[in-house]
Amino acid sequence: MAKILSGKDVAAALNERLTAEVKDLKAAGIDPTLAILRVGERADDLSYERGATKRADSIGVAVKNVVLPEDVSQEELEKAFADINHDDKVHGILMFRPLPKHLDDKPIVAAMDPAKDIDGITVGSAAGVYMKSGEGFAPCTAQACIEILDHYGIDPRGKRAAIIGRSLVIGRPVAMMMMHKNATITICHTKTVDMPSVTKEADIVIVAAGKMETIGAEYFKPGQTVIDVGIGWNEEKQKLCGDVKFDEVEPIVDAITPVPGGVGSVTTSVLISHVIDSAKKLA
Amino acid sequence: MAKILSGKDVAAALNERLTAEVKDLKAAGIDPTLAILRVGERADDLSYERGATKRADSIGVAVKNVVLPEDVSQEELEKAFADINHDDKVHGILMFRPLPKHLDDKPIVAAMDPAKDIDGITVGSAAGVYMKSGEGFAPCTAQACIEILDHYGIDPRGKRAAIIGRSLVIGRPVAMMMMHKNATITICHTKTVDMPSVTKEADIVIVAAGKMETIGAEYFKPGQTVIDVGIGWNEEKQKLCGDVKFDEVEPIVDAITPVPGGVGSVTTSVLISHVIDSAKKLA
Repeated sequence: MAKILSGKDVAAALNERLTAEVKDLKAAGIDPTLAILRVGERADDLSYERGATKRADSIGVAVKNVVLPEDVSQEELEKAFADINHDDKVHGILMFRPLPKHLDDKPIVAAMDPAKDIDGITVGSAAGVYMKSGEGFAPCTAQACIEILDHYGIDPRGKRAAIIGRSLVIGRPVAMMMMHKNATITICHTKTVDMPSVTKEADIVIVAAGKMETIGAEYFKPGQTVIDVGIGWNEEKQKLCGDVKFDEVEPIVDAITPVPGGVGSVTTSVLISHVIDSAKKLA
Repeated sequence: MAKILSGKDVAAALNERLTAEVKDLKAAGIDPTLAILRVGERADDLSYERGATKRADSIGVAVKNVVLPEDVSQEELEKAFADINHDDKVHGILMFRPLPKHLDDKPIVAAMDPAKDIDGITVGSAAGVYMKSGEGFAPCTAQACIEILDHYGIDPRGKRAAIIGRSLVIGRPVAMMMMHKNATITICHTKTVDMPSVTKEADIVIVAAGKMETIGAEYFKPGQTVIDVGIGWNEEKQKLCGDVKFDEVEPIVDAITPVPGGVGSVTTSVLISHVIDSAKKLA
């Protein structure tokens, strides 16, 4: 039986700390504020927005919603974005992507104030994660993995870490962050040959394959810690599942995050923590 | 007996191609120009400057030397830099660092036009390597390793590559470049436990440990390709040596770069290739 690394417990501890920080900021006259920019009414966006808003409310962070119709023009979108980008009272911006097809997110991402880039989507934030310069913010999901390890006292220093996935949203940044914490990292991807032999060498395996229930028992050995970033709706089982075949992997390894209740539960807390960090810096 | 991967041969092939490219550019009225900014008379700087100038001359790239006295003020340095940074006739800038202690290179690096950052020292270039966005240039030494593999037809795709070193000048960028070429990369560093067992898993080992003759037979196995980035003067042996103990490693592995005559021989050709690439883009 593996230890279950509960993302909910990690989030609860994080939220408690953040709530205290917001109290201090408010006492100093600063009202940390998250702006959420949404175009249209996509179900995924609405669901994430509800989660982030609820989390922000409970921690005491204000939310400013900017909602634009799905047929908004590029010019109107850029104007609405510029307003929050230049608003001193906004400390962080979450913009849902992908945008509708007629819109281009590039000029918006390029114009975004790196200090407000709480979701880590700008070039400045990417460079910050790569260079460990302290500029910008890491993508929230990547940092959520690190928060889980930190919470459970699993120190990557000197350990071998295998990361499945090399995307800029999760695989690459979480690999860099693990390296900055002195792990010896190996990055696996679709061109990796005999991936199970690679992941078996590791002490910590972070799975962001992007394919539901594809990573089974053959990838693991006893003693390992497994962080499953994947999340998707399994139509057959009628439940949310990760990239890892939980039922067959859990009996093998030492510790594992569940899905749901794992990495995904920590992400919005990390997002809100970035708003607070930004408010502290701008203060 | 390992195959010797001769940097000189790689450079010769590269120079031939570059010479033809410069001819075409000149026929189109473009005169690719490298500006070299040097403060003081450090022996290392002078030596690299001589090598780069000679290489540029032979390829047909013009060199504009900006030499400032060691006691130059920050203001004068920034003015001299701004002149070449804004000069349309300059396509690339090489600035020797470290600068004398009373000077700060940060504002200069921050101001540098990414298109002219042929040595890959700006944040934009670092992000470009990490994100594979095509912006900026990779550090020349990192790219020299890739040029050697390319020249000898060693395709990293699906292979395991171990990189010793995680600096922003060589370890980290060469790891990213190997990953972009579809290798499964592992980054080793000073906190790696039992490094020889890690490097032995790899098909390609790139050594940038930064410590002369420290990587011996125990790190390698038959069949491997070894790229030795290190270079230093061995006082005892009265010759230049790499980080790898060449005499004991060469008999084990499949292919290896010598020192001297390896990676270092390719670096200035890569630098000049960046000037030419920049001239093409600005053209």
